[in-house]
Amino acid sequence: MSQTSKKHWKIRLHEIIYEADTPKGKLFDVILLIAIIASIVLVMLESIKSFDAKYHNLLNISEWIITILFSIEYIARIVTVKKPLKYVTSFYGIIDLLSTTPKYISLLFGGIHALAALRALRLLRVFRILKLARFLGASQVLTNSLKASRAKISVFLFAVLILSIIFGTLMYLIEGEVSGFTSIPVSVYWCIVTLTTVGFGDIAPITPIGQLIAAIIMILGYGIIAVPTGIVSAEYVNQSKDKNATPQKPKVNLNSQSCQNCLASNHKDEAEFCYNCGNKLH
Amino acid sequence: MSQTSKKHWKIRLHEIIYEADTPKGKLFDVILLIAIIASIVLVMLESIKSFDAKYHNLLNISEWIITILFSIEYIARIVTVKKPLKYVTSFYGIIDLLSTTPKYISLLFGGIHALAALRALRLLRVFRILKLARFLGASQVLTNSLKASRAKISVFLFAVLILSIIFGTLMYLIEGEVSGFTSIPVSVYWCIVTLTTVGFGDIAPITPIGQLIAAIIMILGYGIIAVPTGIVSAEYVNQSKDKNATPQKPKVNLNSQSCQNCLASNHKDEAEFCYNCGNKLH
Amino acid sequence: MSQTSKKHWKIRLHEIIYEADTPKGKLFDVILLIAIIASIVLVMLESIKSFDAKYHNLLNISEWIITILFSIEYIARIVTVKKPLKYVTSFYGIIDLLSTTPKYISLLFGGIHALAALRALRLLRVFRILKLARFLGASQVLTNSLKASRAKISVFLFAVLILSIIFGTLMYLIEGEVSGFTSIPVSVYWCIVTLTTVGFGDIAPITPIGQLIAAIIMILGYGIIAVPTGIVSAEYVNQSKDKNATPQKPKVNLNSQSCQNCLASNHKDEAEFCYNCGNKLH
Amino acid sequence: MSQTSKKHWKIRLHEIIYEADTPKGKLFDVILLIAIIASIVLVMLESIKSFDAKYHNLLNISEWIITILFSIEYIARIVTVKKPLKYVTSFYGIIDLLSTTPKYISLLFGGIHALAALRALRLLRVFRILKLARFLGASQVLTNSLKASRAKISVFLFAVLILSIIFGTLMYLIEGEVSGFTSIPVSVYWCIVTLTTVGFGDIAPITPIGQLIAAIIMILGYGIIAVPTGIVSAEYVNQSKDKNATPQKPKVNLNSQSCQNCLASNHKDEAEFCYNCGNKLH
Repeated sequence: MSQTSKKHWKIRLHEIIYEADTPKGKLFDVILLIAIIASIVLVMLESIKSFDAKYHNLLNISEWIITILFSIEYIARIVTVKKPLKYVTSFYGIIDLLSTTPKYISLLFGGIHALAALRALRLLRVFRILKLARFLGASQVLTNSLKASRAKISVFLFAVLILSIIFGTLMYLIEGEVSGFTSIPVSVYWCIVTLTTVGFGDIAPITPIGQLIAAIIMILGYGIIAVPTGIVSAEYVNQSKDKNATPQKPKVNLNSQSCQNCLASNHKDEAEFCYNCGNKLH
Repeated sequence: MSQTSKKHWKIRLHEIIYEADTPKGKLFDVILLIAIIASIVLVMLESIKSFDAKYHNLLNISEWIITILFSIEYIARIVTVKKPLKYVTSFYGIIDLLSTTPKYISLLFGGIHALAALRALRLLRVFRILKLARFLGASQVLTNSLKASRAKISVFLFAVLILSIIFGTLMYLIEGEVSGFTSIPVSVYWCIVTLTTVGFGDIAPITPIGQLIAAIIMILGYGIIAVPTGIVSAEYVNQSKDKNATPQKPKVNLNSQSCQNCLASNHKDEAEFCYNCGNKLH
Repeated sequence: MSQTSKKHWKIRLHEIIYEADTPKGKLFDVILLIAIIASIVLVMLESIKSFDAKYHNLLNISEWIITILFSIEYIARIVTVKKPLKYVTSFYGIIDLLSTTPKYISLLFGGIHALAALRALRLLRVFRILKLARFLGASQVLTNSLKASRAKISVFLFAVLILSIIFGTLMYLIEGEVSGFTSIPVSVYWCIVTLTTVGFGDIAPITPIGQLIAAIIMILGYGIIAVPTGIVSAEYVNQSKDKNATPQKPKVNLNSQSCQNCLASNHKDEAEFCYNCGNKLH
Repeated sequence: MSQTSKKHWKIRLHEIIYEADTPKGKLFDVILLIAIIASIVLVMLESIKSFDAKYHNLLNISEWIITILFSIEYIARIVTVKKPLKYVTSFYGIIDLLSTTPKYISLLFGGIHALAALRALRLLRVFRILKLARFLGASQVLTNSLKASRAKISVFLFAVLILSIIFGTLMYLIEGEVSGFTSIPVSVYWCIVTLTTVGFGDIAPITPIGQLIAAIIMILGYGIIAVPTGIVSAEYVNQSKDKNATPQKPKVNLNSQSCQNCLASNHKDEAEFCYNCGNKLH
C-alpha cells in the first residue's frame, strides 16, 4: 500500500473508487455521497411544477452535470476492475447503470423516469464503504433477525392475504358500490388498508352490518400486529442471548479493500491476496 | 407403494388426490393450486364492471370449466375414501363443497356469491400437502403461541370492547348527530376505529370536549396495543427457550400419507397401518 | 353449606346473589349476565332514530322491565349484606346504583344518559363471579404487568404529551387556519392523532414545510410505539421467568364465597370464617 | 444546612430556586410548576379566536404577569449562581430565557410565537427537581434502552426513508396529479403517511396498480413496525436481566443539591463539597 507511486494507474484508480482506506478514496466517497443526495433532491425539485417552471434551465443543467459525473464514474468502475462483466452484472453494477440512464432516456422520451428513484439505492454502497461500523453491526443484526424469522413472517403475511380476500369479498357483497366498494379487488384493497390499521377513509362502510364486520377486521388487525412483532422480538432476544453465551463479539469486518479481479470484499486486515480468487490485493 | 400397478384404481386415485409422495400426486396438487388461484382471480375480475362488460363470455366459460373441474375433484374425493360421510362433514370437505357451489347457485339467482371467497381457504390444504416444511414448522410455532396466549388475548379484547362501549356512548352524548355520531352503535364503531388506530376519518369529533376525549381514546389505543404484543412476544421467547432446553427439534411430520378409511393424516414415515383405525396404508 | 334449608332467608339470598357455588347462585349470575347484555343492547337500539321511531313502546317497556329488575337486585344486595353502607360505597355498589338510574332520570329530563354506558362495567363482576378461571389468571398477569410498568408508561405518555404540545404549536404557526389548524388546542389534537398513527385526515397539512414536519411526527410516532411495547414485553418475559423459577403456579382463587359482613371475597376453599372480619361464612 | 439564618441571601435564594430539599425550595418548585402549566394553557386559549375575542384583556394581563414572574425568576437564577454564563448557556438556561421572551417579542411584532411552546420543556426540570423518584428511575431505563438501540433504530429509519423515496417516486409516476400525487416530495410524504400506518386519506391512490402498490407499502409498514419494537423489547429484556445478575439496584440519585459555582447536580447525600469544582455546598 506504501508504493502507490509505482503502481499502475488502474490499480490506483481502483483504490480510490472501490476502497476507502486512503485519503483520496475517502474523499471520493464523500463527494459521491453528496452527488447522490444532490441528484435525488434534483429529481424531487424537478417534479414540483411551480419550481420547475421557474428554474427549468438550472435544474436541467445540474441534472446533466450529475448524469455525466455518474457516467464517468461508471466507466471508471468498469475500466479499473479486471473482470468488467462481473461488475456490470452485480447488484451494485446494475444500480450504478440505472442511476446514469434517466437523463439519457428523457432525451428520447421526455419526463421523469422511475429509474431516477433507484439512485437512492446507491446510498447503500456508499454507507458500506464509509465504514460506518456501528451502523453496519446494527444492520447485520437487523438482517439476521429478519432472515431468521422469514418463514414465520411469510406464513403471517399469507394469513393476512387470505383474510383480506375473504373479508374483502364479504364487504363487497354487503356494502356494494354505493359505499365505494366497487369491485372485489377494491374491497380487498380496502380490507388491507383496514387490517394494517392505515385507514385512509377514502372508502368506508356505511351499512350497520358493514361497520360491524369492519370493526371485527380492525380488532383482528390490531390483535395480529402482535404476531410479527412477537416473532422479531423473540428473534432479537435469542440473538443477543447467543452473543452473551459466546464471549467474542461478532466481528464486523471494516476493511474496505476490494479485489480488482473478482470484486470480493470483506478481506482480513492483514490479507495480501484475495481469499476468493488468489489475486494480489493492492 | 411399489406395486401400484396391481392396486385397485380407488387406491391409486386416493394416492393421487390425497397424498403428495408420488410424482402424479405432486402434479395433481400443483394443478389444483393453479386452478384455485385462477378461480379466485376469475371471481375478482368478474366483479370489476368494466372488465366483466368486455369479457363476460370468456369469464363465464372459464368459471364453468373451473366449477366442473372442482365438481369432478369433489366427487373423486368422495368416491376414493372408504367413509365418504366423514370426509363430507370434515372442515376441508365443507370448504371443497362450498367452492364448487357458487356457479350452480348463480344459475338460480345470478350474481357473485360470498361462497366464492371461501375458495381461498382451499389454499390452506394444498400448502399443507405440498409439504412446505419450513412454513409448516413456522405456522405451528405461530399457532402454538396464539393458543397459549388465547386467554390473555380474550381478556384484552373484552377490555377493548367494554372501553369502546363506554367511550362510544360518551362520544354520542357529547358530539351528537351533527358530527356524524348518529347513534350509539355508530359511536362504538367509531371508537373501535380510533382505539385500533385505524382512523378512517369518515366520522371525526368537532367539539373541543369531543376532541379531548378522542385524544384520550387514541393515547389509550396507542398504549394498549403494547399489551397483545407483549403477550405474544413473551410467549415466543418462552417457546424458543423451551426448544433450547430440550435439544431435540420439534419434529414437523412431513409425511403426506392419508388413511383411506378414516382420513387421518400425519402418519409416521415407516407406518404400514393407520394409527387411528388400523386400516392398511397404501 | 349443606344445611341451606335451616338457614335464614337473608343468608340464602346472600348466597344466591353474591356467590356462584350453588346451582341457584350460578343461575342467578347467568340471568344477570343476560339482563346486563340485553340492557346494553336496548340502550344502543334506542339511540338509532329509525329503530326507535318504529319500536319506541317496545323499547320503553323493555327498558323499564330491566330497570325494575336491576332495582330489585340492588335492594336485595343491600338487604342481604350486614354492612349495607360498605357495599353502597364500594366500586361495584356505585356501578350497580348507576346502572339502575338512567331510566328514572330520563323520567325527569328525557333522553338517553351517559350512565347507561356504565352498565357495561357490571359485566366485570359477573365474569369474576362466574369463575372463568383461565381468564381470571390471564387478567391477573395482565394487571400485574401493567402495574409493574406503570411508572415507565407514565413517563412515556408524559413525553408524548410534551412532544404533542411543542409540535402542535409549531404546526399551528406553520399551517395556520387555512389547513384546519384553527387553534393550538386543535393543533395539539391533530398532533396526537398523528403521533398515535390514527390519522383521521379531517385535518391535514398542505404546505411543504407542514408536510415535512408531519412526516417527522409520524416517523417519531411510528418509532416510539416501540417503547411501551418493549416495556410491557420485557415485563411479561420477566413475570413468566419468575414463574418458572418458583415451581408453584400462582394460584388463582376461584372460591366465589363472599363475606356477608364485610364483603371480602377470595376466601380459601376450606375457610369457615372470614379472614378479614371473622364473621362465619355460610 | 441548619444555619440558614446566618447564610448569605444569595446562598439562601440559590437553595430555594435550585434545590428542593427545604420546605421553601419545595414550595417554590410547586408554584413554578403551576405557573408553567398556566402559561401553556394561556397560550393555547389565546390561539382560540372566539375565546381571545371575548377575554382578550384578561389573557393579555395574565400573560404579562407570568412573563414578569418568569423574568424575575430568570434574573434570580443568574444572580444566585457564581458563574452566570455557565447557567445562561446551559440547556435549561436557554429554555428559561426562551420561555420569557414570547411576550416581549409580541410587543414588537404581535401574534403568538413558537417560543411559547418551548415552555413545555421547562416541565422537564421541575419534574426532575421534584424528586419524582420512581419516574426518574423509569425514565433512566427508557433513555438507556433508547441509547443502546440508537444505532439499530437509525439503520431502521434510514431504510424507511429509502423505501419512501423509491415507492414515493413510483406512486408519483403511476398515479399522477389527478389523484393528488402532485410532485415527488408530496408522494414521498404520502408514502411516509402510509408506511407508518397513519393514513390521513387526504391523498389516496385511485388506479388499480396504484392501489396494488399502496397495499404492498401498507403490508410492508405493518410488518416492519415489528423491527423497532423488537429492538427495544430485546434491549429491555437485556437491561432487566443485567439488573437481576448484579443484585444492587441501579441507584437513582434523588439529592437535589446543586452547586452554586458550576451548577453540577447529582451530589451524594453526605457530600459537603462539589465533586466537580470543589466549591462548598450549602
